[in-house]
Amino acid sequence: MATPTTRTSVRRRPERGAYDRTQIDGILDEGLICHAGFLDGGCPVVIPMGFARRGDHLLMHGSTASRMMRLLAAGAEVCVTVTLLDGLVLARSAFHHSMNYRSVVVFGRCTEIVDPESKTEALRAISEHLVPGRWAEVRPPSAQELKATRVLALPINEASAKIRQGGPIDDQEDMALVVWAGVLPLALVPGDPVPDGEIPRAVPHYITGYTRRPSS
Amino acid sequence: MATPTTRTSVRRRPERGAYDRTQIDGILDEGLICHAGFLDGGCPVVIPMGFARRGDHLLMHGSTASRMMRLLAAGAEVCVTVTLLDGLVLARSAFHHSMNYRSVVVFGRCTEIVDPESKTEALRAISEHLVPGRWAEVRPPSAQELKATRVLALPINEASAKIRQGGPIDDQEDMALVVWAGVLPLALVPGDPVPDGEIPRAVPHYITGYTRRPSS
Repeated sequence: MATPTTRTSVRRRPERGAYDRTQIDGILDEGLICHAGFLDGGCPVVIPMGFARRGDHLLMHGSTASRMMRLLAAGAEVCVTVTLLDGLVLARSAFHHSMNYRSVVVFGRCTEIVDPESKTEALRAISEHLVPGRWAEVRPPSAQELKATRVLALPINEASAKIRQGGPIDDQEDMALVVWAGVLPLALVPGDPVPDGEIPRAVPHYITGYTRRPSS
Repeated sequence: MATPTTRTSVRRRPERGAYDRTQIDGILDEGLICHAGFLDGGCPVVIPMGFARRGDHLLMHGSTASRMMRLLAAGAEVCVTVTLLDGLVLARSAFHHSMNYRSVVVFGRCTEIVDPESKTEALRAISEHLVPGRWAEVRPPSAQELKATRVLALPINEASAKIRQGGPIDDQEDMALVVWAGVLPLALVPGDPVPDGEIPRAVPHYITGYTRRPSS
């Protein structure tokens, strides 16, 4: 259980806030991309990127030529937000329309992973987070590729989740209005794999059975 | 065509950058949520929220009690990022793995829409962006509900898109490796509508036929 700080306390709709690491980790582990916010020349910048959770850290990687990666490696404050959109909530009044979602914000400063072996391990964790089973089959990074890649770790100390689920909550006097109300669930769903190249290869089981919610 | 500024120039992988309003607007119009980044007490904060594009502005709404909405209404610098994740790109080497995505960043400062009639029109635009056809069927906002809602407009002046599409780009010497390579497409797909309440109502056509990509 992370103790809420001024930054992580969910102030708007506190009933939607969660500080439990199991809930936070579940959201992080399902997400494919995060949005990282940092300051560049005094202005906020928000960039989408792949990531992984490994234990008590978020791992992120990028090119050593990336300005963002350089700023974050230098210890800039960052806010990393992961959002899973679960559905559109259609109420009887315009006002009570909403979305079902699960989101996590993590505040802090990154440290850079520089040792080549630790770096490779972190890249493996990111790969396994995105496509479990993939790493063992592909050519691992060369020394030169490792040098071209920056890997950052952000501690999950100052973090909170915000969750909205369930149907619309309408005013009592609107309940009899003649309008459909309910939830339209949304999910990120894989389509048919599109093979590359001219040599036919069997589609691996981790691709044909790909899902972000193995437990549900 | 928006002229790229220092902030909107796509520096990493400039070939993925786009400054054409048609491309920018297409991404904004498909997105359901944005991630808004701003400074709170000197620290970057990134919050997911619903939005809409109306002409040359992004519209956002929230509670008047929301700290973020108050800060943005006061003219704080904001970076709004909309990301559509289109697929996982599986290369033959770990290094060349990637994601297909389309993202837009918009930098600027919001202005608040205060006049009740303009506010209602903006809320209608947000509603129609999220669920076209919905607004006409539901109870419109009361004067009190309008008062409880803050509506902001962010000009789409300083904006750029970044797009990655297509298959993996592997090194020539990896092309014969015995591993499946290609793209696993991903899309946000609606599930079966979940009705609310005890009075059965017909599911509207805009829900049964709901899609974010009407033209494709």
